Amino acid sequence: MDFYEIVRTRRSVRAYQPSVIPEEVLERVLDAARIAPSGSNRQPTRLILIRDEERKRRVAELCHGQTFIATAPVVIAACGRDIQYNRGEWMGRCSVIVDVAIAVDHLTLAARAEGLGTCWIGSFDGPALKQFLGLPEDVEVVALTPLGYPQGDPFRPPEGRIPREEFVMEEKWG
Amino acid sequence: MDFYEIVRTRRSVRAYQPSVIPEEVLERVLDAARIAPSGSNRQPTRLILIRDEERKRRVAELCHGQTFIATAPVVIAACGRDIQYNRGEWMGRCSVIVDVAIAVDHLTLAARAEGLGTCWIGSFDGPALKQFLGLPEDVEVVALTPLGYPQGDPFRPPEGRIPREEFVMEEKWG
Repeated sequence: MDFYEIVRTRRSVRAYQPSVIPEEVLERVLDAARIAPSGSNRQPTRLILIRDEERKRRVAELCHGQTFIATAPVVIAACGRDIQYNRGEWMGRCSVIVDVAIAVDHLTLAARAEGLGTCWIGSFDGPALKQFLGLPEDVEVVALTPLGYPQGDPFRPPEGRIPREEFVMEEKWG
Repeated sequence: MDFYEIVRTRRSVRAYQPSVIPEEVLERVLDAARIAPSGSNRQPTRLILIRDEERKRRVAELCHGQTFIATAPVVIAACGRDIQYNRGEWMGRCSVIVDVAIAVDHLTLAARAEGLGTCWIGSFDGPALKQFLGLPEDVEVVALTPLGYPQGDPFRPPEGRIPREEFVMEEKWG
């Protein structure tokens, strides 16, 4: 599928069909995330796939009750290891967030290319999820997404974006 | 261009032709970033394009002397406004990093689709760049990238990625 068509029509999908994702499709989507770039190629990102019905429901609860998440056949928790390097000097241990976000962005676009829906989930109980998923001390959940075939046809252009003149500046701020 | 071909062959480009990027090409690439998703569609990301030769060289110096950056016709500083919301409860004011990283990832993939090179720059003197670009108090540089037509043909598959078995886990860590 054409790249710009993917970018233009990726939407947050909040209603899923229960149908299983063929493994070869899932592998292509996961591989898009796996080969994503990371700072100095340190690859701090790991994905945890939750497919068990009961566990998906618990994850949805820990995302502050966003119950639609559990309706997708797969829920992905994108985790990042604190790799003790810094970027830009103000980001501290949050530098890893850049790398995980890149991988998840690759994944969401690949999913759209396959006709699969995703939804960036940023609101969750981090400590409780960390315990539930058994993460090591130096690993944190950065984002989650459900993954599955959407109900209906949600893929359409985005709404409510700021105009280019506001988004882009020349030479300096303002 | 096919999405997976883009993902597979995007590489960090560190040698650029000085040739100008046609404005319509630049606009497509910038628009891919502009329409990227952000948490609750709050759109905290802004791009600053540096095209002035002297200013590009200064930016490269502030990226700890990565002089190749200034050889591209355009250098982009991706900035994020601290929008005072939180994700996952451990990220604090670094939450905005997710949104900026999504936008820049869209941009780097769009650039590849156009035959343009980019290079994620995460090593920079944040406070000095912030001053140089005239950013408001609540805005920070998250990442930079040069943008331009590469010298030679750098687009080829990535090297040195961990295998899928290491990248993906089922149900929980380990």
